[in-house]
Amino acid sequence: MSDVYASRRTRLRERCSASGSTAALITRPANVRYLAGPAPHGAVLLLGRCEDVLVCPHPPDDRPAEGRPDETLPVHVLNGPGDPAVAAAGIAGERRADSLAVEEHHLTVARHRAVGSVAPRVRLADLGGAVEQLRVVKDEEEISCLRIGAEIADQALGELLESILVGRTERHLALELERRLVDHGADGPGFPTSVATGPNSGRRGHRPTDRRVEEGDFLSVCLGATYRGYRCEIGRTFVIGTSPADWQIDLYDLVFTAQRAGREALAPGAAYRDVDRAARQVLDSAGYGERLQPLTGHGVGLEIDEDPQLAPTTMGKLDACVPVTVEPGVHLPGRGGVRIDDTLVVRPEADGGPELLTITTKELLAL
Amino acid sequence: MSDVYASRRTRLRERCSASGSTAALITRPANVRYLAGPAPHGAVLLLGRCEDVLVCPHPPDDRPAEGRPDETLPVHVLNGPGDPAVAAAGIAGERRADSLAVEEHHLTVARHRAVGSVAPRVRLADLGGAVEQLRVVKDEEEISCLRIGAEIADQALGELLESILVGRTERHLALELERRLVDHGADGPGFPTSVATGPNSGRRGHRPTDRRVEEGDFLSVCLGATYRGYRCEIGRTFVIGTSPADWQIDLYDLVFTAQRAGREALAPGAAYRDVDRAARQVLDSAGYGERLQPLTGHGVGLEIDEDPQLAPTTMGKLDACVPVTVEPGVHLPGRGGVRIDDTLVVRPEADGGPELLTITTKELLAL
Repeated sequence: MSDVYASRRTRLRERCSASGSTAALITRPANVRYLAGPAPHGAVLLLGRCEDVLVCPHPPDDRPAEGRPDETLPVHVLNGPGDPAVAAAGIAGERRADSLAVEEHHLTVARHRAVGSVAPRVRLADLGGAVEQLRVVKDEEEISCLRIGAEIADQALGELLESILVGRTERHLALELERRLVDHGADGPGFPTSVATGPNSGRRGHRPTDRRVEEGDFLSVCLGATYRGYRCEIGRTFVIGTSPADWQIDLYDLVFTAQRAGREALAPGAAYRDVDRAARQVLDSAGYGERLQPLTGHGVGLEIDEDPQLAPTTMGKLDACVPVTVEPGVHLPGRGGVRIDDTLVVRPEADGGPELLTITTKELLAL
Repeated sequence: MSDVYASRRTRLRERCSASGSTAALITRPANVRYLAGPAPHGAVLLLGRCEDVLVCPHPPDDRPAEGRPDETLPVHVLNGPGDPAVAAAGIAGERRADSLAVEEHHLTVARHRAVGSVAPRVRLADLGGAVEQLRVVKDEEEISCLRIGAEIADQALGELLESILVGRTERHLALELERRLVDHGADGPGFPTSVATGPNSGRRGHRPTDRRVEEGDFLSVCLGATYRGYRCEIGRTFVIGTSPADWQIDLYDLVFTAQRAGREALAPGAAYRDVDRAARQVLDSAGYGERLQPLTGHGVGLEIDEDPQLAPTTMGKLDACVPVTVEPGVHLPGRGGVRIDDTLVVRPEADGGPELLTITTKELLAL
């Protein structure tokens, strides 16, 4: 694995020198993880002209459960309280870097000031989203982690569907799902599990309440596993009871059609906003345009919400090996709604088209 | 409750005008929650000369489970994607504020720039930790939420101790505790539950692994509930099996003595660093000075780690009605260790001294 991390750092170094910086300070945790492997909480990475260093906070023994950082990387541990980013800037100053690129979208104004004042001769530049851009296209090792995570989420969801649901609260169902994720080998949930019943169903990111599942409810569930740091996402909507109402069948069919249109639009070279439009126009033309969430899907990886954003105003085009969600939904205030959410990997047509990672059925199940 | 929020905003407004700002932009979520009540994820608060406004992201229906914001507060919901902080700065500009105090310790450099560019005639100032300072001393309503949260955590822990532990993994025990927190009425865990066995025991913030509990292990557990937004913390260390080893008894007694010394040092007017020193010197004089974590305790409230920090270099003194943790610990690499962690409220001697919220026994239990 250390080869992988080293080659990622080399690519970043090339970008930095192209933009005139001799050093870069990586503070955003997922970016540190991407370039250095699993590192202690709060660690930062100083990328130098040739040698890099991982700067870790005190105390030295706060290791993450999922592994250790790249062992070829020198490690500097603070010997007391302090900000590793400030210490790293100090090291950059001692090494006579003339320009240090920092993540202005992650560093706070106060921290940026502290970083600048410890190395006053070093000019601070903006690294922007350079690491996030490197992270968009995944290698097969990363995709394999996502695939395993998706299998785990499918298993957890499948088991829940076999149990009795009526009378149980959203909170309990969410905890039950999270326990099952861990049972099946996840590091943990990839994000807070969302379980929404009745009038709450169909709301994106709904936080579980004490409402109990009732006959006739829509039940929408969104969950995901973290596996070796990688996070996937699956969302499904079910009906509780034997016979869905007509409005439920119609709304489900509509969202299903929109979601399928989004999935089918995934291809290398497809514009982000065209994928969004494919799903959105189905819901729009049915009169739900006003109620729609700002995006139809997003990248996943070391974070659950990464680039690209599949939204009307995002510029850019999909590449092969980019994992994204496709997750349109409609929520009708007071009544509830439907969300259907898959994680897929963009693949060329010659390789069979988009690879569906979350394979739980999308038929409308009555439970 | 809206009176409470309004009077908090009035106190903040007085501080702002004293430092020359006619408006303030609150972005840090716990600070927004403190001044405006439970608000949608991503909402920001614009504090004006007279009228305040809560600016919420799109979509409008992403409400938190725990309640609604102060209903006397005007709400502005974005009608599309965008940063509520930028929108709020635009409103401040339209209202001809000349100076807008922002939270430089929370806003990123990139966001600060966007806020500044939307209202170029408004001078941006630094609000610093003004809201965090207001939050340090709690009212009795807040303390009551912490007290209930602590009762819930005590119950969850007590039930775990009655179950069979040997052979179960750290991850499963942590999930079990989190389920029990919710069973007993918590909104959720106050922070990721830490369960550490054998060589992992005694490590602060240890993330649970697949290691199973074995006979002869130290088992250290740290958990807390969130109740109406307020977070408490309890940590205990146990021995698995019938007869603790001598080194375990000695280490436990030592950490217990240090923790008691810390608790007994809590009083209105006591310097933060003197409380830290009371606990730290016990461990120091036993030769563990090098291995100690940078702090002995910290404030709790809407966040699990708030001001004050009980640490050797922190300036300041305790007030009455400040809830803090006292949580010294020692971890011996390869062997494990002990942590004991309580949440207490500082009270004057005349009121009986510090109020212990987490009442689970601190005797060394052999399970």
